[in-house]
Amino acid sequence: MTTQQLTEQIIKKKSFLCIGLDVDLNKIPQHLLQTEDPIFEFNKAIIDATHHLCVSYKPNTAFYEAYGLKGWKALEKTINYLNKNHPDIFTIADAKRGDIGNTSTMYAKAFFEDLAFDSVTVAPYMGKDSVEPFLAFKDKHTIILALTSNQGAFDFQTKLVDGKELYKQVLETSKSWNNSENLMYVVGATKAEYFADIRKIIPSSFLLVPGVGAQGGNLQDVCKYGMSKNVGLLINSSRGIIYASQKEDFAQAAAEKAKDLQQQMEGILNNK
Amino acid sequence: MTTQQLTEQIIKKKSFLCIGLDVDLNKIPQHLLQTEDPIFEFNKAIIDATHHLCVSYKPNTAFYEAYGLKGWKALEKTINYLNKNHPDIFTIADAKRGDIGNTSTMYAKAFFEDLAFDSVTVAPYMGKDSVEPFLAFKDKHTIILALTSNQGAFDFQTKLVDGKELYKQVLETSKSWNNSENLMYVVGATKAEYFADIRKIIPSSFLLVPGVGAQGGNLQDVCKYGMSKNVGLLINSSRGIIYASQKEDFAQAAAEKAKDLQQQMEGILNNK
Repeated sequence: MTTQQLTEQIIKKKSFLCIGLDVDLNKIPQHLLQTEDPIFEFNKAIIDATHHLCVSYKPNTAFYEAYGLKGWKALEKTINYLNKNHPDIFTIADAKRGDIGNTSTMYAKAFFEDLAFDSVTVAPYMGKDSVEPFLAFKDKHTIILALTSNQGAFDFQTKLVDGKELYKQVLETSKSWNNSENLMYVVGATKAEYFADIRKIIPSSFLLVPGVGAQGGNLQDVCKYGMSKNVGLLINSSRGIIYASQKEDFAQAAAEKAKDLQQQMEGILNNK
Repeated sequence: MTTQQLTEQIIKKKSFLCIGLDVDLNKIPQHLLQTEDPIFEFNKAIIDATHHLCVSYKPNTAFYEAYGLKGWKALEKTINYLNKNHPDIFTIADAKRGDIGNTSTMYAKAFFEDLAFDSVTVAPYMGKDSVEPFLAFKDKHTIILALTSNQGAFDFQTKLVDGKELYKQVLETSKSWNNSENLMYVVGATKAEYFADIRKIIPSSFLLVPGVGAQGGNLQDVCKYGMSKNVGLLINSSRGIIYASQKEDFAQAAAEKAKDLQQQMEGILNNK
């Protein structure tokens, strides 16, 4: 999927919502545990109930790997279900990978070819030659961690490097990498005031924004400072939506939470 | 496994060699492709031929994920084979993970519980609360990327933060984290002169050192500057050993390359 197609979907659906599929077997409705593949059944029900309200789904790979082979199989079934039934949805493998060149190529193959995701999240610590192998894939997107939404973001990301915060150095430096038009960035919503500075460096790149909801970020503030001409935002909510209810009505409850966010987004887009 | 047990193995085997199991189906002997699980058959043959020469194996997860479910299954079979037949071997999941707290816990469960590795590599970009969930596992080890062996290491890792290189800030800062006694560090061999400075910050921690061989690092120099009282080094070689031959004699050829490195290590340990 191209970024233009993503923007078209956002305008069509009046939503820039991304739903995080972080499936924890301790948190899903217990009646699903009797099915053969509880993780996939949970995801399928969530997707069926919410796909018209969002433009993206983001499974976090940790939650699948923790269940070993069964988990990886559920991840495969989930992305296949999305690609088959909702090809207009932008899919994100939230994997936070990154390694030396030939190894990053293997990760890129895993997520772009074997699993056929549209995008993958990547940690920038190892620099240019750890990220460029991902960028080499046409119409695939590499979402670099810039400023994350956790407390630990202040350990290194906001430290000054040559008078500029490390995450800004990451933004600046990455612009010079080959195929940088395939870059997007993770920027946590818990620091909305930072978005104005970020937009000076990357005016139009898409930003994947976690931390709205469960982690305390404010949607209005993020949009005020972070929205670009082509919208340029994917706002992620995971637990706030998928665990809205732990009973049999979980999918409907998730849809209501998603609808609430979508309507706020529609209001923002209408006033843009 | 405790670090003391690891040191005991090093002294017993006169080796601090780690063999990287980065299995690429395009590079393994072609006759193995006719077996049901070529990746595992390759690993099993390499392990059978080299286990007495090394103290550690390090599968890089990228090479398994690239083959989807089959790859993950081969990884599971490989670690199970090691744990069953060679419980004295220190196992490393070279996964370079790291995420917000609850997600890092899921990664830790994946590698420490589901797959039962002794250790996992972790990227430090997201800071304290992304690493501590790994450190909470008793007798398991978290190997943080400090200074990697690739060219991209110079993009951010060696940049000055408050007058000190970022990788040194990572070393310093990580010492204050909970259960920091479970930390080890990745330090690339291509920059042997940096080891002296690193040992001033972390005098006794184990260092996992890639980049000897294929990437050009020098074993003597690394040991001169990097060895601690308890040895404190695991020198990794992947391609230089496992792809020594692409013919039917591949395991024997790998053993010869491993033996060559082990004997160099024995010489260094005897002169210590």
